[in-house]
Amino acid sequence: MKNAGLLDGLIQALRRLPGVGPKSAQRYAYHLLQHDREGARHLSEALAGALAGLRRCQRCNTFSDQAICETCASTRRDPSLLCVVETPSDQLMVEQTLAFQGLYYVLMGRLSPLDGVGPREIGLEQLLARASDGVVTEVILATNFTQEGEATAHYLGELLRARGLAVTRLARGVPMGSELEYVDASTIAQAMRDRR
Amino acid sequence: MKNAGLLDGLIQALRRLPGVGPKSAQRYAYHLLQHDREGARHLSEALAGALAGLRRCQRCNTFSDQAICETCASTRRDPSLLCVVETPSDQLMVEQTLAFQGLYYVLMGRLSPLDGVGPREIGLEQLLARASDGVVTEVILATNFTQEGEATAHYLGELLRARGLAVTRLARGVPMGSELEYVDASTIAQAMRDRR
Repeated sequence: MKNAGLLDGLIQALRRLPGVGPKSAQRYAYHLLQHDREGARHLSEALAGALAGLRRCQRCNTFSDQAICETCASTRRDPSLLCVVETPSDQLMVEQTLAFQGLYYVLMGRLSPLDGVGPREIGLEQLLARASDGVVTEVILATNFTQEGEATAHYLGELLRARGLAVTRLARGVPMGSELEYVDASTIAQAMRDRR
Repeated sequence: MKNAGLLDGLIQALRRLPGVGPKSAQRYAYHLLQHDREGARHLSEALAGALAGLRRCQRCNTFSDQAICETCASTRRDPSLLCVVETPSDQLMVEQTLAFQGLYYVLMGRLSPLDGVGPREIGLEQLLARASDGVVTEVILATNFTQEGEATAHYLGELLRARGLAVTRLARGVPMGSELEYVDASTIAQAMRDRR
């Protein structure tokens, strides 16, 4: 194996993927080289293409190959509603509900002081400027219901309210289709407080 | 998200990695684009480089950037011993033991008729030619101790013995450091039969 400089290089490069250790990186490399060279070529080109062509949407901060992404450019959406999510996947999940017709702002992260992710790292200035465009009247905070997501929502909420915006948060409660017996106590407690 | 053709393309390309579903592919793509663009560039180049530069060693069948890999070209190894392994990782594991100074043949797979992997797919002709070079006297079958690995070893063993070669198999038995209480019965039975 000592001579396989190119192979080792590929395995090391695959280890840069999050959560991929040496064994998985080896498995990926062998698979691509032996069984899916077309897939390897495809991946190499997709990476180069994305690096060269993808930028951030100037309005919502998500990845886009245009200056303004298609969602932000749409005239069929309600520009007075701005939904703040952590990641493009979260945005996709909200879109799939078909329950929201406003616009988005994608933080591309969450506040996480222990990991060195502060207000600057999540582009807070840009969000405040976006929300203060005079058209947005309500900001819906749809960050995750994790500790960091909640802290982010709390922090953003204070700043946005200080600018005179209506700020709401996705409702917490018992998930659809679940049996109370198997729901954790803090969720039930929250659902009890927010009963309607 | 509809506008992100390049992003979708990258996510689809990442799904070609074995065992990577849509969620992981998304996570990989976002991580690379947002936090490790250098890693993405590196991976793109490593893939292209490996595709262009890696071929198979003419003697042992492993990935190599030369016609004969460094291990096969070494003059400090015993050419009369040929160890047959399934994958380059298995070869690496045997190398790390420092218990083997012969040469290798890497099958790059195992017999698996149900998956359409027959003698031709694992390069059996090439192995038989390699083992019949007149220098090799003993072939050590170090395929895995799985059902498919055992079947491969059995099949190879018959063919190699018919060519007058001494054929051995890695010893089966109780792993180092293990307590009998926690070893499965078939392993103990095998260790009992092969006691020495």
